[in-house]
Amino acid sequence: MSTHARLDQQIGFIVEIDRLKEVLRQSLLTQSRRRENSAEHSWHFALLAVTLREYAPFPELDLLRVLKMILIHDLVEIDAGDTYCYDAAGNQDKALREQCAADRIFNLLPLDQANEIRSLWDEFEAQATPEAKYAAALDRVQPVLLNYHTQGQSWREHGVTLAQVLERNRHIEAGAPALWAYVRELIDDALAKGWIKR
Amino acid sequence: MSTHARLDQQIGFIVEIDRLKEVLRQSLLTQSRRRENSAEHSWHFALLAVTLREYAPFPELDLLRVLKMILIHDLVEIDAGDTYCYDAAGNQDKALREQCAADRIFNLLPLDQANEIRSLWDEFEAQATPEAKYAAALDRVQPVLLNYHTQGQSWREHGVTLAQVLERNRHIEAGAPALWAYVRELIDDALAKGWIKR
Repeated sequence: MSTHARLDQQIGFIVEIDRLKEVLRQSLLTQSRRRENSAEHSWHFALLAVTLREYAPFPELDLLRVLKMILIHDLVEIDAGDTYCYDAAGNQDKALREQCAADRIFNLLPLDQANEIRSLWDEFEAQATPEAKYAAALDRVQPVLLNYHTQGQSWREHGVTLAQVLERNRHIEAGAPALWAYVRELIDDALAKGWIKR
Repeated sequence: MSTHARLDQQIGFIVEIDRLKEVLRQSLLTQSRRRENSAEHSWHFALLAVTLREYAPFPELDLLRVLKMILIHDLVEIDAGDTYCYDAAGNQDKALREQCAADRIFNLLPLDQANEIRSLWDEFEAQATPEAKYAAALDRVQPVLLNYHTQGQSWREHGVTLAQVLERNRHIEAGAPALWAYVRELIDDALAKGWIKR
């Protein structure tokens, strides 16, 4: 492949992923209270990983791999959309929709890079390595922070219960135990304030 | 400092930087044509750095430092706002406004982390190291791509001339020579299409 053809593929990928900025999540921003999109979520999430590194119980953590994983983790939503974590029906076919999306979007890149990004995404999804466990924990911490700092609006809108929140966020403990203790305090406070149902 | 006090500072910083999602740039998104915000720009920019790494003429480039630099490079805009690159008046006091912003925002973090982030930001601004040169180049490539793929809308709206675009983007060459050649082709084509004034 000529350098120019390779660069054309890379730029094609870069232009395509601009679409992630149009995919909306359930979280609200603390100021305008508009819904967050998946691109800005990914940025915020990456800065959580930089800032909270010391709470990962893995001394050998490869932070560069964590950041790459975070930056690409939501790209599949360009085709598959964001599936709200408490949407049982939507979550049934989520895996299939996301696999198809990964096949299309990652393969816009030259093969070596498509393979690298696919392997990072598979690693993130499997949550087996220290890097993926740490990233998966922060991917839950970030929306809890936004939810808490918007008076629990998205929990309230969906009538989310304590059991659901605990089930959803419990694995924070595996990737960042000290952060789980912190998040538990926020959840308890949100419960006391009536933002989460018993 | 107790662990909890340290974590409170870190979380305070994380919640504060949510505001970057409200700072609008001049670039338009390729799909909805709404204006891009600085948080999603930072995410996109970081993925350019991962994808285009091979075009940095620095074999020893520390990509982790590049990514950290990119993720924090616009945080000062939370207080200082985004200054459009072709706004001569706004650019006169930009440096002072951004220094004040850096002092406030970075110091929300514990001192060791405030120092690290300040040093990354100073490095990015100085454009002297390989990491900063590569990042600075991509920080120009990203808006050119969005501009080109929205029929030059922001160039046209502001009546931007070829001389201005070349002056603004020329330093792409120092951080990524092959990308400068590519961007020159886009600029020439935009000129031919009348999106940039002679």
